[in-house]
Amino acid sequence: MKILVMNPNSTTSMTDKIVESARQKASAGTTIIGASGTDSPASIQGHHDEALSVPGLIKRLQQAEQEGIDGVVVACFDDPGIGACREVFSGPVIGICEAAVKAASMISTSFSVVTTLPRSVPVIEDLIHGYGLSHRCRKVRSAAIPVLALEEADSGAREKVRDEILRAVREDNCEAVVLGCAGMADLTEWLTAETGVPVIDGVTVATRMIEALVGCGLKTSKIGAYATPIQH
Amino acid sequence: MKILVMNPNSTTSMTDKIVESARQKASAGTTIIGASGTDSPASIQGHHDEALSVPGLIKRLQQAEQEGIDGVVVACFDDPGIGACREVFSGPVIGICEAAVKAASMISTSFSVVTTLPRSVPVIEDLIHGYGLSHRCRKVRSAAIPVLALEEADSGAREKVRDEILRAVREDNCEAVVLGCAGMADLTEWLTAETGVPVIDGVTVATRMIEALVGCGLKTSKIGAYATPIQH
Amino acid sequence: MKILVMNPNSTTSMTDKIVESARQKASAGTTIIGASGTDSPASIQGHHDEALSVPGLIKRLQQAEQEGIDGVVVACFDDPGIGACREVFSGPVIGICEAAVKAASMISTSFSVVTTLPRSVPVIEDLIHGYGLSHRCRKVRSAAIPVLALEEADSGAREKVRDEILRAVREDNCEAVVLGCAGMADLTEWLTAETGVPVIDGVTVATRMIEALVGCGLKTSKIGAYATPIQH
Amino acid sequence: MKILVMNPNSTTSMTDKIVESARQKASAGTTIIGASGTDSPASIQGHHDEALSVPGLIKRLQQAEQEGIDGVVVACFDDPGIGACREVFSGPVIGICEAAVKAASMISTSFSVVTTLPRSVPVIEDLIHGYGLSHRCRKVRSAAIPVLALEEADSGAREKVRDEILRAVREDNCEAVVLGCAGMADLTEWLTAETGVPVIDGVTVATRMIEALVGCGLKTSKIGAYATPIQH
Amino acid sequence: MKILVMNPNSTTSMTDKIVESARQKASAGTTIIGASGTDSPASIQGHHDEALSVPGLIKRLQQAEQEGIDGVVVACFDDPGIGACREVFSGPVIGICEAAVKAASMISTSFSVVTTLPRSVPVIEDLIHGYGLSHRCRKVRSAAIPVLALEEADSGAREKVRDEILRAVREDNCEAVVLGCAGMADLTEWLTAETGVPVIDGVTVATRMIEALVGCGLKTSKIGAYATPIQH
Amino acid sequence: MKILVMNPNSTTSMTDKIVESARQKASAGTTIIGASGTDSPASIQGHHDEALSVPGLIKRLQQAEQEGIDGVVVACFDDPGIGACREVFSGPVIGICEAAVKAASMISTSFSVVTTLPRSVPVIEDLIHGYGLSHRCRKVRSAAIPVLALEEADSGAREKVRDEILRAVREDNCEAVVLGCAGMADLTEWLTAETGVPVIDGVTVATRMIEALVGCGLKTSKIGAYATPIQH
Repeated sequence: MKILVMNPNSTTSMTDKIVESARQKASAGTTIIGASGTDSPASIQGHHDEALSVPGLIKRLQQAEQEGIDGVVVACFDDPGIGACREVFSGPVIGICEAAVKAASMISTSFSVVTTLPRSVPVIEDLIHGYGLSHRCRKVRSAAIPVLALEEADSGAREKVRDEILRAVREDNCEAVVLGCAGMADLTEWLTAETGVPVIDGVTVATRMIEALVGCGLKTSKIGAYATPIQH
Repeated sequence: MKILVMNPNSTTSMTDKIVESARQKASAGTTIIGASGTDSPASIQGHHDEALSVPGLIKRLQQAEQEGIDGVVVACFDDPGIGACREVFSGPVIGICEAAVKAASMISTSFSVVTTLPRSVPVIEDLIHGYGLSHRCRKVRSAAIPVLALEEADSGAREKVRDEILRAVREDNCEAVVLGCAGMADLTEWLTAETGVPVIDGVTVATRMIEALVGCGLKTSKIGAYATPIQH
Repeated sequence: MKILVMNPNSTTSMTDKIVESARQKASAGTTIIGASGTDSPASIQGHHDEALSVPGLIKRLQQAEQEGIDGVVVACFDDPGIGACREVFSGPVIGICEAAVKAASMISTSFSVVTTLPRSVPVIEDLIHGYGLSHRCRKVRSAAIPVLALEEADSGAREKVRDEILRAVREDNCEAVVLGCAGMADLTEWLTAETGVPVIDGVTVATRMIEALVGCGLKTSKIGAYATPIQH
Repeated sequence: MKILVMNPNSTTSMTDKIVESARQKASAGTTIIGASGTDSPASIQGHHDEALSVPGLIKRLQQAEQEGIDGVVVACFDDPGIGACREVFSGPVIGICEAAVKAASMISTSFSVVTTLPRSVPVIEDLIHGYGLSHRCRKVRSAAIPVLALEEADSGAREKVRDEILRAVREDNCEAVVLGCAGMADLTEWLTAETGVPVIDGVTVATRMIEALVGCGLKTSKIGAYATPIQH
Repeated sequence: MKILVMNPNSTTSMTDKIVESARQKASAGTTIIGASGTDSPASIQGHHDEALSVPGLIKRLQQAEQEGIDGVVVACFDDPGIGACREVFSGPVIGICEAAVKAASMISTSFSVVTTLPRSVPVIEDLIHGYGLSHRCRKVRSAAIPVLALEEADSGAREKVRDEILRAVREDNCEAVVLGCAGMADLTEWLTAETGVPVIDGVTVATRMIEALVGCGLKTSKIGAYATPIQH
Repeated sequence: MKILVMNPNSTTSMTDKIVESARQKASAGTTIIGASGTDSPASIQGHHDEALSVPGLIKRLQQAEQEGIDGVVVACFDDPGIGACREVFSGPVIGICEAAVKAASMISTSFSVVTTLPRSVPVIEDLIHGYGLSHRCRKVRSAAIPVLALEEADSGAREKVRDEILRAVREDNCEAVVLGCAGMADLTEWLTAETGVPVIDGVTVATRMIEALVGCGLKTSKIGAYATPIQH
């Protein structure tokens, strides 16, 4: 099985980290193909960045469709362009926010999310509302760090994420914590060890969920909203 | 007051029609500036088309910000890129779906929407869910016509829209009908006359609502999700 | 265009202030006609007061219907008697709570409301639930002041409202604040300047929204819940 | 225990029928006191009628407070003025819509409502939304009869109600049917026998629920929205 | 009228207390029959305990059906096995959580719940979501006491419950408090006196609501989800 | 990886079929262990049957915990006893309804469910409400067949399921169909071929989702509602 793990932003060090995380958790027979955004911002911090990342994302998926890729993970917690991706690709496509919050609701009755910047909080709240899981989400929190601080070893970012997770457990009465940025994927085990609560990373969960859907022979439905785009 | 009425697709005949509708209903002191999408599909029929229309839309709004435009109407019923638009522009920005369904809920207790193609139905249902008006929306219906059929005088499209409105009133017990495509703006009066029910066109309503917000001195909040994009 | 701005309570100094605010923001061609409640309480602080204000409100609207008024603003944040008003009047009618929260959701992803007395908090929460915007409303807050304290220059009321707005921004992570009482209309600019966040006053927003609906030729639907009352 | 069963409209023949129904189902030790609306419409068919019925209703409850009445049933399915009633009265107050739909949800997983005129349908839908039971309500239906037709023996109204109940069971897959008008109270047993499904009348259920609340020593909370009105 | 008040756990001292509370508030003509769980845990603290209590509960209700019992109260705040009970019994069956929160919403606009252990909080939140009253529930709180501590006079449990009620009123702005455990039934009057707010006990409310339903001749609907189990 | 696929009812031919389906779709390194209910009904058709199946289910999971099983699929579409299972088992546990509807919402914007008997419809509607996906579910439908008819080759059951799927696509405008009974697992490919729409079987999807969660190192959170049961 071949899965494309697409980092919609253009920071290749982040792509490498994401792909490495996906590979570590993927099944034996799965090939993970990584890709970064082209003509895309270096990080996705808000709707503008998200919007600019989507055309490149679509183009890469159209190519993936030709290459015999079986399924796609969109590795940005804002779940950019998922509808468009599902239109241009036959196999299943999932964003890491959707994967992570659905997984969280399978192993807990409530979760909180810890993301990077405060401006992403309402974006994620809206996604969760759309996925129907607002009643399972105690709070979306920000660790007040820029996305790319996660790429710098000595930025203190990982400690800030850990501290925010501990605050979430203490103040929100949540039973699990979802990492609200693809750039946190490599921290999952360390954060789990430090905090003692289930910490859910969307990149790995999404990769395994795509494996699950492909393994069951499921493809995106083409009889409604996700039909192939009309030729103009 | 200067309002940009932006047709995100690239069909200029449709832009002309939309701008004409906006001008007819705008207040005396308002200047309507029209614009079409660049590097955008000829019509927006699904998520893919929508996604491709947004970068050009953003660029046009960044220019509008420099030109002293006071507010913006995004004249496509999928409300594409609204979040991004609100980030790059200071004044108020509204999509015609949001404007129309909010107006509909001010003059009726329930409405149905009549759009073009069936594939747009779930897109619009999701928008209305996000706007919190699902309990006011009886049904989103399709007249089963491509968007650009509305540009051809003898396509029978306008009759199909009228017939679907009549079906909506008869079968849904709705009290008003919202036109689910910017390309229907010029039909509003004819449809109202033919059907005898309040028919709501998002283009004109959005134009007047932007006037309302600008007139009250309201601008998009910049302290949260709609803050100016971060420079990369 | 002639718009009736109706203060449902009987305090004429409050009516004057409300009408003055509406006039300042109304379009050039709009005539604002003010009216106060008759046989109505001096202020509306709870369901009882609200209920007693409605028969006079209805009577005034029936008269407005004869006078060629085009649209009506009901200037009390409890939105009293809106359904009844829509039955007896042909043109659009809107309450200031509905107008303000719908406007707030056009320029922000979340807002809080600051009202007068604590007893009004659940009333407003229920209205917002009915309008479908609970997921956009962070919190309804009370500044713990009686409505009529807003009429007294040295009551300290305006400072209390300002302080509560600042608390809302700090504690609720809201992006805008809605003023939860018609009697705060004249404070909007001062509060905006003092707090630096978008402050939304329902009186002016409702006035401009009525202009918008009338300008688009929209009237209240008469084929359902808002049909003219049946003669007994 | 003394319970006031208040018909908010002014048709005394309807009051008699309602009171008779309440008495038949009340407990041994309960005294039912009936009252009709004063300065109120002959029937309540829409918001206007409802609004006009409330001041008289409030006045009667203030008197009841002095008379040592223990609890109040407001016997109109639009649940008019309940908030105001709860403010002016110490004991529990309930409307027949609230009582009936809550009872229905205790003996079934879904119900439909059969009311009189189509214009009442959205009013009742809104009430049920407020009570949080929309997911239990399959449909609100109208038998297309004026309220007062229920007062005329040979109007054919009761047959129309029966036929609509049968349609509800057949088309909605509902498990119980709620009678959507106080004037149907006397038909409950006949309709149950004719249709073979649980038919729920709000008048009798509300009476017994008030007995229940009073019997448990519960009174309306006075520390929030239902506090005694402020003296002006 | 004969009502079975069933304590699904096997602690008979708790059953005695519950039955005593029910008897004190029941109507004159009502006979309360008590029963404890068989092959059931000593207390129900979580889903596992709840699940083990249900088969015995069902068996007891099948026996009750033969004994001419008119209605049943399931006296555990997790509302265990209510669907199954409604299938095997003809008369009305209600759990004390459902009864209490529906009563709370009749005498207040908002309530909080105080239960025993933290692990029960999400269980109760889910029940309230199912009953459609999340928007009326400010918070579900735990007094951090095991259920059986309520059986020991000197455990300090009742003081902890009182203190948590006071915290609820202070911090949640709730207007009433619901006791979230059948074992608190005997504390209702003391807690009401100590806290000065309406305190609602599900055992007594459920008993009186069953009286109400039986008194109105209502039985569980047998045409849908609650039909008699199919013989295997 | 070892996964227990548990059929909560006692019909071993159905267990065999379910286990066979799970094995066909499981990953190479996964061992599927099947189990049937003990002291459980032959099929689960309603709450009563469901309740009786749970104690045996719990016992089997407690044994699985000792045997080093990694995760559990509960293969009944009523998702019986999931909360209790999550309390007594460390690894992830999922019911087939939850797995199927979450998968459906990853490959479509709307789905319908086709189950066996009409009495299961409201049970499934409630589950979907709890999972937060009511807005994605067009309709829960019944093929009007007893569960065990699926075990008889010539019962006509599979044709009835197919016909109901075709009706769902035609009448509901759904984009995918979920099979609402574990006993339909072996029909998935045939039904997909016959109907041409994505048909989702919960047994195989749940098996692969458990693989996904285990593969990511996720276990059920033990700090809240799913903590190990308290010893009595």
